[in-house]
Amino acid sequence: MKVHLLTIGDELLIGQVVDTNSAWMARQLNGIGAQVIGKETVPDLVEEIVAALRRGVEKADVVLVTGGLGPTKDDVTKKALATFYEVGFVFSQQTFDHISRFLSFLGREASDAHRDQCFMPQNAELLRNRMGTAPGMWFDEAGKVVVSMPGVPFEMEYLMDAEVLPRLQKRFPASPILHHTLLTAGEGESSIAERLRDLEDKLPNEVKLAYLPSLGQVKLRLTARGANEDELRRLLDQEAQKIRDLLPDLIFGREEETLEQVVGVLLQERQWKLATAESCTGGYLAHRITTVAGSSNYFKGSVIAYSNELKTGLLGVKPETLDAVGAVSEETVREMVAGALDRLDVDIAVAVSGIAGPGGGTPEKPVGTIWIAVGSRQRVKTLHLQLGKDRLKNIQFTAVAALNFLRKFLLD
Amino acid sequence: MKVHLLTIGDELLIGQVVDTNSAWMARQLNGIGAQVIGKETVPDLVEEIVAALRRGVEKADVVLVTGGLGPTKDDVTKKALATFYEVGFVFSQQTFDHISRFLSFLGREASDAHRDQCFMPQNAELLRNRMGTAPGMWFDEAGKVVVSMPGVPFEMEYLMDAEVLPRLQKRFPASPILHHTLLTAGEGESSIAERLRDLEDKLPNEVKLAYLPSLGQVKLRLTARGANEDELRRLLDQEAQKIRDLLPDLIFGREEETLEQVVGVLLQERQWKLATAESCTGGYLAHRITTVAGSSNYFKGSVIAYSNELKTGLLGVKPETLDAVGAVSEETVREMVAGALDRLDVDIAVAVSGIAGPGGGTPEKPVGTIWIAVGSRQRVKTLHLQLGKDRLKNIQFTAVAALNFLRKFLLD
Repeated sequence: MKVHLLTIGDELLIGQVVDTNSAWMARQLNGIGAQVIGKETVPDLVEEIVAALRRGVEKADVVLVTGGLGPTKDDVTKKALATFYEVGFVFSQQTFDHISRFLSFLGREASDAHRDQCFMPQNAELLRNRMGTAPGMWFDEAGKVVVSMPGVPFEMEYLMDAEVLPRLQKRFPASPILHHTLLTAGEGESSIAERLRDLEDKLPNEVKLAYLPSLGQVKLRLTARGANEDELRRLLDQEAQKIRDLLPDLIFGREEETLEQVVGVLLQERQWKLATAESCTGGYLAHRITTVAGSSNYFKGSVIAYSNELKTGLLGVKPETLDAVGAVSEETVREMVAGALDRLDVDIAVAVSGIAGPGGGTPEKPVGTIWIAVGSRQRVKTLHLQLGKDRLKNIQFTAVAALNFLRKFLLD
Repeated sequence: MKVHLLTIGDELLIGQVVDTNSAWMARQLNGIGAQVIGKETVPDLVEEIVAALRRGVEKADVVLVTGGLGPTKDDVTKKALATFYEVGFVFSQQTFDHISRFLSFLGREASDAHRDQCFMPQNAELLRNRMGTAPGMWFDEAGKVVVSMPGVPFEMEYLMDAEVLPRLQKRFPASPILHHTLLTAGEGESSIAERLRDLEDKLPNEVKLAYLPSLGQVKLRLTARGANEDELRRLLDQEAQKIRDLLPDLIFGREEETLEQVVGVLLQERQWKLATAESCTGGYLAHRITTVAGSSNYFKGSVIAYSNELKTGLLGVKPETLDAVGAVSEETVREMVAGALDRLDVDIAVAVSGIAGPGGGTPEKPVGTIWIAVGSRQRVKTLHLQLGKDRLKNIQFTAVAALNFLRKFLLD
């Protein structure tokens, strides 16, 4: 199945918004064996959208449209779709009921703008959007499918996962395509590629390996395509096992698992309680841990000691230590761990202190200097990182490194 | 001047790379009064690129091409440009000398691949690239300009700043385009549209208004286009002021500001120190506050009291309160604020407690029940929210609502 992506919105053309939707959609479409053959962005103008729809269906089997839907005036996408298909509009009571229910949850009432929003092109099949008021629209005419979704990322992602991808798989059955994704943390893409060079040279023809790097992590996605599903599965499992043998120190999970989920499972197996003591990560480490549903079973809480006063007052770090070696030091994170174990009464604690930047660096401790400690009452381990100059990246990378360090400590 | 952006690369179509170049280019082009009228991405295939070039010059005065240039493998862009203009290639000694010098700086020598790189379409004017080996190419035929640049962001940015933007300004002296963006929090897109309906109906012809919603926030972007820059600025300021008068309770800033930055400025003006006491947000509120560089000037830290034991032990919430009305209650967040003011020794504190979900709801307190309190030693205010079922959305929305509630408290 060939797919063309069409993105609508002036905000994309004046550069106010970076289009992250397209990359996300392309990855999901790849996952079901579809091929994205092109991508286009047009302004909020009916005639431009109509022309782009024509170009799209000429080249592709499917055109996925995002943006230009919503309760306010710049809602031109529906007009363009009705023009493109030469149909009129009908009022959708179902959509109005959904919007009214959705708003009543938020303690609000449907307005005239919401009522206007319920007029839909006659030939649209509506896709229920649980994340917002504007439904998706599915069109299937002359052998070509066009789907229109809101541009708000979490609404689009919900509609893709719940409605669009399953329908596309049914509408355009593809020869089997299987994936097996291994998750790594702790090494960059190029050094992993170095260690997998021989394996890559000898991969069976049916199997491809892709590197999907993100901050502090690299996903290794094996894809197998061919006629015989059992054989493909055997090949995938075989290559995945080889990669596991080559990277035993780096692989922490597979598919959609996260480091924080894996850590959560390890803690629950041991029936251990966790706390964090954070300085430079400013709560981001605790946030990552608490994104996992049920994390209250093993996570008790944190002290975010951004000021030295709180490092001393709430975590019992000695003022002499801060005077002698400073807040960003191995000794300080050790004392932060000891303080968290004691005062938050947990079995294991993680402490982080560093200079996130852009200010605050010195010649001895430049921006990006980070110390991490993990410890139980029996033992403590520490890790030193030297990162870059970007504040947000430093915070995020440090949290990933701390989670991975915690995971290894738990497995030790 | 109308500009079309053409991006080349398979990596963009499989979602391996998010296209940040286009947004950057669009902002720079806007700055010189150019209007980006469309954007297209095609794979590394000569015929696809040629067809896209034809579409581009048909619609726009200028087509800016990025990607598909470089010393390795799939260098198809130059072939496509030569095909498009029906010209041959010439060897550029100047480019070869530049590449040789550039590589010698890196202690390397020019390879055959680099020599091949020096064959250029006959009608190209070469633009010197100080950041890499591949020069930019400027074509000016039949009244239309086509520029080709490498896709590596810092090479493209260098060429745009040093060569392309100044040349375009000379080649197409432009009529101005101005933007003014107002930031709101606390109401949805449709209820804002309701309040601005009259204003929208009476907007001057030169001015357009667009709504850009994200979780808990809506950006209002005014755009003015016309011949007289002073007059446009006057119109924009006048309409922006009208919107400020209509939405005094919602507008917290303009352009690229964030709620956490605005809160930081208010705290610094008052020389107040802030702390948070968080349960359901699990550190995300502290994280948002500490993404701001220099936040250590006003943010002392947090207690993330995920367990009731820590609410009592570290924040002094009374066990009787927790027994009587539970952790998710107005009384508990009041006591959390009092505890944070006292034990973290700050001037103002924010407390959050709620049921983020998906589990933990009851008939009286369903998932999405949230209590927020903000207080100083003089007064405390509380806010109740009833949100949806999505854990991460609830955490993020609560943090935005808490920051906005804190902002209003500071302004009171």
